[in-house]
Parts: sequence; C-alpha cells; structure tokens
Amino acid sequence: MTPRSRGVRLDPAARAALPVAVDAMGGDKAPAEIVAGARRAADEGIPVVLVGPPDRVGDTAGLELVACTEVIAMHDDPAQAVRRKKDSSLVRAAELVRDGRAGAMVSAGNTGATMASALLRMGRLSGVVRPCIATPLPRLGRAPAVLVDAGANAECTEAMLVQFAQMGAAYATARYGIADPAVALLSIGEEPSKGTPLVKATHELLAEGSGVRFVGNVEGRDLLPCPADVVVTDGFTGNVALKALEGSLRFIVQTLFEVFGTDAETTAASQVLLPHLLPVAAELDPENTGGAMLLGVDGVCVISHGSSSATAMLNAVRVAHDLVAAGLVDGLADAVSPA
Amino acid sequence: MTPRSRGVRLDPAARAALPVAVDAMGGDKAPAEIVAGARRAADEGIPVVLVGPPDRVGDTAGLELVACTEVIAMHDDPAQAVRRKKDSSLVRAAELVRDGRAGAMVSAGNTGATMASALLRMGRLSGVVRPCIATPLPRLGRAPAVLVDAGANAECTEAMLVQFAQMGAAYATARYGIADPAVALLSIGEEPSKGTPLVKATHELLAEGSGVRFVGNVEGRDLLPCPADVVVTDGFTGNVALKALEGSLRFIVQTLFEVFGTDAETTAASQVLLPHLLPVAAELDPENTGGAMLLGVDGVCVISHGSSSATAMLNAVRVAHDLVAAGLVDGLADAVSPA
Repeated sequence: MTPRSRGVRLDPAARAALPVAVDAMGGDKAPAEIVAGARRAADEGIPVVLVGPPDRVGDTAGLELVACTEVIAMHDDPAQAVRRKKDSSLVRAAELVRDGRAGAMVSAGNTGATMASALLRMGRLSGVVRPCIATPLPRLGRAPAVLVDAGANAECTEAMLVQFAQMGAAYATARYGIADPAVALLSIGEEPSKGTPLVKATHELLAEGSGVRFVGNVEGRDLLPCPADVVVTDGFTGNVALKALEGSLRFIVQTLFEVFGTDAETTAASQVLLPHLLPVAAELDPENTGGAMLLGVDGVCVISHGSSSATAMLNAVRVAHDLVAAGLVDGLADAVSPA
Repeated sequence: MTPRSRGVRLDPAARAALPVAVDAMGGDKAPAEIVAGARRAADEGIPVVLVGPPDRVGDTAGLELVACTEVIAMHDDPAQAVRRKKDSSLVRAAELVRDGRAGAMVSAGNTGATMASALLRMGRLSGVVRPCIATPLPRLGRAPAVLVDAGANAECTEAMLVQFAQMGAAYATARYGIADPAVALLSIGEEPSKGTPLVKATHELLAEGSGVRFVGNVEGRDLLPCPADVVVTDGFTGNVALKALEGSLRFIVQTLFEVFGTDAETTAASQVLLPHLLPVAAELDPENTGGAMLLGVDGVCVISHGSSSATAMLNAVRVAHDLVAAGLVDGLADAVSPA
C-alpha cells in the first residue's frame, strides 16, 4: 500500500514562493534542453532548482543544483528503479516537494518512475484510491479539455473513475479557469447501456451525482475537439486513445509535408499556407501544452513528454508554478469523495 | 447461447455465383444511394439482390427485390429489433445467406442489429466463441492493416482475443493477399508486462504460438500507419481507438479547409495542392475501404458506414463478392483453434 500524504503543510502562498524542482536528467534531450528551459523560466521570475548529479548535469546556467548521485533511465523498471536508486534526481525532486523545499516537481524522464517517485515520496492525498494522469486534449482557440486517466492505471474500479472525474474537474478549474466543467465518460455509444461493466457502473455513479456536472458518454470521435471539458476513462483506454490521436496528427503532418515537397509549385503554395497552418500545429503540439499532470498525490507533479525541448520545459515549469499558486492540491483534496 | 453454424453447405464457386443480398433500407442515405450503389455493382457484373419493403424501396433500378414488410431503424435496440422484426430487411438478408439463396449480405444500417441478424440467422462458425468486427486501418500506398475487434464485443476473454487474431490473419490473407500476416496486440507499451491482465494473458498465449505470426505489442501511436498487418484488441478499446482516429482525421480535414478558405491567396494555393491531397484523403476515407466485416459467422457479412453513399455501397458489394469467391468463411473456419 502506498503511503498517505506525508508532506510538510504550507499555505498556497508560501508554497508558491518555493522553487520548482526540475529533474535535470529527465528526457531524451537532458540535460542541455532541460537546463535551458529551466533557465528561461527563471528569467521570467519563476524560482527554479535543478536536481541531478553535478558531473552529468554540467553547466547549470547559473541555476541552483541540488546534487544527487544517481539517474533513473528511460528504460529502467519504474518500481524497481525508485526502490533501488534512492539518490536519483527523480526521487530527490519528489523529496524536495515533500519536505517543503520545493513547490512542485517537473520531469521529462521515465513516466512510470516519475509517478512512483511522487506517489512514494509525497504520498497520496487523503481519500484518494489511486492517482491518475491528466492530459490536455487541444481545442483550437479554446482551453483544452482534460483526459483522465491518460495512463497511470491500466486497471480501474468505478470508485477510481469517479475520483478521476472529481479530480479532473478540479484540475480543469485550477488549470484553465473552467468554473463548472462538463464531465463526460468515454464509451462506445451515447446510451448508458453501452460499454464494459466498468463503464456502465461508472455511468450510473456519475449520473447519480458525484459532485461533478456529468453530461453523459462521449465516443472516440468526440475527443478532438471535445465537447466536454473533462473526459473520464481507465488508464489503458485513455493511453491508447491519446496515443492514437497523437499518432494520427503526426501522420497527417508528415503526409502534408510530403505533399508540400512534391515540386516547385507545391512548395510555393505551401509557403502561402504555412503561416496559417503553423499556429494550428502549435496548438496541437504536446510541446506547448505544459505536459501531463499527476493528480492525487500530495504535491504538484508535472510529467513532460520524453522528447521535451527547452520550450516544453519552460511551459511545464510555468504550469507547475501556476498550479501551486492556484492551490491545485487543496482543490483536489476538497473535490474527492473518499471511496 | 447463439446457434452454431446452420447454413446450407455450398462450395466457394457455387456460392460466388449467388447474388449479394443488399439491405436496401440500411443507412442514412437509404434507399436511394443504396439502390444506386447496388445498381453500379450489378453493372460491373456482380449479381445483386435487394431486400426491403417494396413500397419503401420504391424504384429498384431494375434489380431483383426480395420483399419484406419491416425495417430495423438506426436507433432500434439491436437484440430486441431482431427478435421482434422477423420480417425486416436485415433479418431476411441474413436468411438468404443461410438458405443458400445469397452468397453474402451487406448493410449500412444499425450495426448491432446487423451483427445480431447475421449471428442469429447464419450462426457461429464451429469453434468460434464470439464473432468480431474487422476494420481496415489505412496505410498509404499499401494494403490496409486490419483491426479486430472494432466493436462487436465490449467484454472479452484471452481465448476470444486469440481467435480474433486467428480470424484477423485469415481475413488479411483473403482480403488483401497478405501471405503470412504480422499480428500485433494493442497495448500501452511494447513490453509483455504492460497492459491489463487480459492483454498480458493474451500476449502470453499469442507468444506461445497460436498459429499466427505474433510480432508483439503495438501502441495507439502505431495504428496509423500500422507496422503490423493485424492489430488485436477488445471491442471496447478497438472502437474507441478507431473512432479517435476517424475523429482526428475529420478534424484535420475540416481545419485544413478552413485555412484554405482564409483569403484569395490561400484559396489559390489550395488549388495547387488539392490534386495531390485528394488521393490521400480518398485512401483515408472509410467510404472507399469497403466497410467493416463480421468475422466468425457462417457467411460473409459486410457492415458499411451508416453514412454510406452509392460509391461506398458499390465498394462494399465488391468486397463481399470477392470474399465469397476467395473462400473467406472456409479460411476462417480453418484458422480458428476451438476454445
């Protein structure tokens, strides 16, 4: 059993004044891009502290570095790595949050190990059965919708899904300022009778009233752009759906660029269209959305894409800082009805 | 329990000479587009018979009509409708196949009722636990990959998923001429340890050898274009993933057209690119793929998109006819190891 909340108690204002702990060794482009992104955040006035082995991080661009001796690699087994590499950048970053020395943690490293570090070191929020991952679903020109769970829990119960709905709604409010978010359940038809036994049972609980504004089922075709503000699903389905969306967008962009490069005429035509297409592509790009968020642990934990650039890291640090100031964790604790 | 195979026995050549039974009342554009598509198939030399109430079908464009009195609507409850509307076009079409009066059936109507009609009237193939839906996943310039189950069974066992793999592989061979199809399992990571207990158990069975060439797990991001020829999943995940792909492609196409229409300059640029983009769009369009296929019943049953046009119907009838001639049903029966 994972520990319940064990963090130091601080009010949101005090916590927001604390630095964001950045895992300097997490991600495919670590440490260079990670440090560069953290530096840009610091230049914006956000307090930042790097965590990593000094000899591997190298130039810290003038940022404070909390030294450790180990790094959890992308391919390491998450549970094992967190147990064995107690002096790793990921585990130490989570401890900084727990100990009230950082306001939040950000990593573009091993997702499973990031979750495990946050869960084991910060602990679960009181009443939360299992933390979940919230990921933005872009909606052009509007705040994104929130998908929960995007992959933390392959196996779920209806009680967990109801909590994901509650936490997802609280997150949509804290992150995007959506006052009374519309919450939908991902299924294979609009009717309450559609789906797995888990989905049908969850539909019933959400419809009975669980403190969220439940608007019924949505289908896979509704995810982009999503009519609801929060979409609830188990972590297996959520992960498959999210990656299917990412994969198809990547495929279309590649195909478009191939067509653009056909000949001189198409290249010229693409030059006319690109200024209009690039802002759309930027809105759809996971680099710019500030990363996924682990909800249900006693601290703010941002999980960035493994491929995060300096810009992605800057956005992730911004989001982490903003959510601490917005009192996300207290909002989540208030939203969850104990199972 | 659904009945086992109860169809008339005919050899593939004799069956291929039989007409394809087309549900004239199935789909949003029935009967006009359906009849028009069937007519075009007949003009290509494919024998076709329409099924529907004469007063509602109206002009049959010179095609033979098997008369019935009822129609199952898109919103009807599938199981109830098939039980109550025994003289509906869907049920009668399935009976024509069972009785050796048609080689195959095609409907763009209520998907659940199409499945139920085929299952209850044609029966399951010997040894098949549950039929599944196979849907093409486009791969530009190559034969599509096959997704099974795309939505017939929200709840599955590992024995069912192994049979889906076997039937999917036999279908990829019969439909696309892929000799020894590579079969993958949809999961949330490449490692056998990733996924739900169902996925992990299925991975183990497929890896042990189940008569298919198993190449391991794929993720949602691998569906477009898919490196494997067959992707196996439960009908809930498969339906969500497929609709997520369809939804994101539709979203991108809409967004592109909005950008194209920005001003005179972008409109001119789009005129240069469209001749290159339209063939790609056509390959990705479900209208042109010949529809989904119900695998595991004792007859060929093509399930077309509800929005099917005459062209979609023509393609669906062609596919149905070709698969009868290719001996699909015998191929499926041989491929399945009884559970």
